[in-house]
Amino acid sequence: MAESPITPQNQDFAAWYQDVVLQGDMAESAEIVKGCMVIKANGYAVWEMLQRELDTRFKATGHQNVYFPLLIPQSFLQREAEHVEGFSPELAVVTIAGGKELEEPYVIRPTSETIVGHFFAKWIQSWRDLPMLMNQWANVVRWELRTRLFLRTTEFLWQEGHTAHATHEEAVEEVLRMLNVYAEVAEDVMAVPVIRGVKTQSEKFAGALRSYSIEAMMQNGLALQAGTSHDLGQNFGRAFDVKFQNKEGQLDYVWQTSWGVSTRLIGGLIMTHSDNKGLVLPPKLAPVKAVLVPIYRKDEERGKVLEAAHKIAADVGAKVDDREGQSPGAKFFHWERRGVPVVLELGPRDLASGSIVLKRRDTGVKQPMPQTELAGALPAALDQMQQDLYRVAQERLRANTVLANSMGEVEQILADVTAEKGGGKFVMAHLKDNPACDARLKEFKATVRCIPLTDAYDGPGKCIVTGEPVDRRAVIAKAY
Amino acid sequence: MAESPITPQNQDFAAWYQDVVLQGDMAESAEIVKGCMVIKANGYAVWEMLQRELDTRFKATGHQNVYFPLLIPQSFLQREAEHVEGFSPELAVVTIAGGKELEEPYVIRPTSETIVGHFFAKWIQSWRDLPMLMNQWANVVRWELRTRLFLRTTEFLWQEGHTAHATHEEAVEEVLRMLNVYAEVAEDVMAVPVIRGVKTQSEKFAGALRSYSIEAMMQNGLALQAGTSHDLGQNFGRAFDVKFQNKEGQLDYVWQTSWGVSTRLIGGLIMTHSDNKGLVLPPKLAPVKAVLVPIYRKDEERGKVLEAAHKIAADVGAKVDDREGQSPGAKFFHWERRGVPVVLELGPRDLASGSIVLKRRDTGVKQPMPQTELAGALPAALDQMQQDLYRVAQERLRANTVLANSMGEVEQILADVTAEKGGGKFVMAHLKDNPACDARLKEFKATVRCIPLTDAYDGPGKCIVTGEPVDRRAVIAKAY
Repeated sequence: MAESPITPQNQDFAAWYQDVVLQGDMAESAEIVKGCMVIKANGYAVWEMLQRELDTRFKATGHQNVYFPLLIPQSFLQREAEHVEGFSPELAVVTIAGGKELEEPYVIRPTSETIVGHFFAKWIQSWRDLPMLMNQWANVVRWELRTRLFLRTTEFLWQEGHTAHATHEEAVEEVLRMLNVYAEVAEDVMAVPVIRGVKTQSEKFAGALRSYSIEAMMQNGLALQAGTSHDLGQNFGRAFDVKFQNKEGQLDYVWQTSWGVSTRLIGGLIMTHSDNKGLVLPPKLAPVKAVLVPIYRKDEERGKVLEAAHKIAADVGAKVDDREGQSPGAKFFHWERRGVPVVLELGPRDLASGSIVLKRRDTGVKQPMPQTELAGALPAALDQMQQDLYRVAQERLRANTVLANSMGEVEQILADVTAEKGGGKFVMAHLKDNPACDARLKEFKATVRCIPLTDAYDGPGKCIVTGEPVDRRAVIAKAY
Repeated sequence: MAESPITPQNQDFAAWYQDVVLQGDMAESAEIVKGCMVIKANGYAVWEMLQRELDTRFKATGHQNVYFPLLIPQSFLQREAEHVEGFSPELAVVTIAGGKELEEPYVIRPTSETIVGHFFAKWIQSWRDLPMLMNQWANVVRWELRTRLFLRTTEFLWQEGHTAHATHEEAVEEVLRMLNVYAEVAEDVMAVPVIRGVKTQSEKFAGALRSYSIEAMMQNGLALQAGTSHDLGQNFGRAFDVKFQNKEGQLDYVWQTSWGVSTRLIGGLIMTHSDNKGLVLPPKLAPVKAVLVPIYRKDEERGKVLEAAHKIAADVGAKVDDREGQSPGAKFFHWERRGVPVVLELGPRDLASGSIVLKRRDTGVKQPMPQTELAGALPAALDQMQQDLYRVAQERLRANTVLANSMGEVEQILADVTAEKGGGKFVMAHLKDNPACDARLKEFKATVRCIPLTDAYDGPGKCIVTGEPVDRRAVIAKAY
């Protein structure tokens, strides 16, 4: 499998992505389980690193991890009208268990607001129980028609935060706090620049008052919703009767939030940084940061090179690829496809001169240096690579973000864009948050990704559909 | 909830356990989802610590984490005759998805040997691909009739290792290696002494050639199977056509293993160490190791005590319980029920004399000392407590392990034992590994827990049922 070629990105972006994922030992389609994938070793190791980065930040902001059941009584979903409408078409339903037909079927959680609502009602009585700040790491199932490895799969892994608050103000603070945590991890850890914004009413989470998201741009110019944070208002509080006695002694419904990111982030990571040689991982998320490939031809060289290789690698925390029966060329190829940020080369001539060669995965540039300098040069190279990946992605986002002042202009810019051919843009236009306006974009398969939280892209203007005044331009794009 | 009393252990062990779990913020029954539980914050934090201890050891022994789908085509289970017979009665079946009846239903994984077998067949061609050493952290569902928090729940969290080898010898080595990893974590981390042994043919995993387990004794003398490691032989290799070319160029089926531990371990942890005051956690698995409770009555004391409390706590890595509106007594009670190993008390008089009081959760003994000695005394107390908990549990195991030389004797010893009343023993008797012998024990609801791997409990003898010679005594007990 490792020997297959990778489709060039500009030939077919979708095929390129699939090749990079497979060759990078990240995931493969499960085929026999519709729309599912097997997350392979390199992919799961990246997920573990991402989990740690996120989990540390969740705990630092006062959240505790808990675990709710996978199965939810089907009737629970019906308690919140928008929620059931949004999720019904995607449910997987358990009708038989323990050899018997169930009286009430269970659905496999597509998300857990309903079952969390049920327990919040048991646990919350007074303002003293608030805020209640919980998170769970879990799998969820949504029966999707069109699936893509990592980006959209029937089952996926994620975290879902669920919180309850005494006031709407506190809930909104929480929603934005967690949106910022997501943006920080995307930008500082994944090296993926994102736009923070609010979703339109058409695009919000089913059951939310307001949804916020971070949106990233892939190398084909398509948008990827990389994380969402929802202000649920009192909707689920009402549906599940989650009441508390406030400081004034009155009963009120709690204000809830929920927020989540998933294994989809890994798809976004791959589509942001990888190239025609395969996977590129930012150093902060690379399970293996550096591999040393020893080079020798003759048997008498072997011992000396390997000895030095292990010594140097131990000093700088690199892994030595000392597999027998594999040429150095095959080894370079192997680690390149797996996205290892730095490969070190050490041969007999390097040994004689006390030097070593450092090669960065993203630039491909070989940097020879005295072995004595490696301990400083390796972390510096990793750090520089992390920064460069972010800079390149940010530059791409900037270069492919354009303004438009009419619906005709928006349509013209996005008309020919596909996931395969690319050419996507983030089109910034003034557009009223109004389902009729969202519908106009659907005609050419575009969507409002979000309305940014800041005026970085221009100030107020008139809606290109209704002419009404709006505060700022929305991000319009074709999206995954 | 934190105010309810805990049923004394000797009054009703089962009720005591339930109280300890609830009051310790470990878990609660999900009720509306049959046989499921919600794992609460303290329980999930213990699980995270256990996961880390196990995961580090899995990686150190060369395993990589991956993730297989939750849903398995129903037909997969039928490929291995014993496997389907063993698991069929417990399956949860998805028959509807995306609004349509499925042509072939999926089962929610009760364990993943079948789907792993399917992928091993795709991934393994040659001896060069072996050994394949994988593990997954996942949830599984088994529709159990009688459930108990942590010990037996319809859904539970676990890890399942799956490996493939070129020879049976290597597979058996792996099976024992992982059994030893489990025993090490049970004894060194959980402070739970275990007996390593092989299961009888009647009690082995459905589809295995041979199953090994670690067995622990709870405070009521019942046995708990705390982890299993299976020699699957070539059974799943044959069922899923997992063939490889061996070094001699011939095609052969791979030899597989699987091994798992689950959230059940937390139940075993609780039933081994906790007492009538509630949860007791061994320091190595305590999410919070030490809490400092500041004591003051007058407002002018408050500032000084809190200031000193935070300074001392920061120095020794303890948490300060500085909640307002709670008495010191309520705080002691709170942390006691949550199993925090050490509570520190600091009041105005301690402040004046430069002293502090250290109280261990297991012994309840208060140890006053100069504040300057705390930095050394706290880790020493935690270390001593970890050792003492193990020693006490080991002593209990020793004291409640008895020899028996006839079936009448075995029955007499175990006749009146129940999970509620306790009085359980590990009865060591010579018994042939033969389904007829296991059946005799079923008459009084006992089972062979395992046949130990060593002669620590006597050598060869004659089977108390058939009179045939057997190598050593088996462990017979009532069990969870």
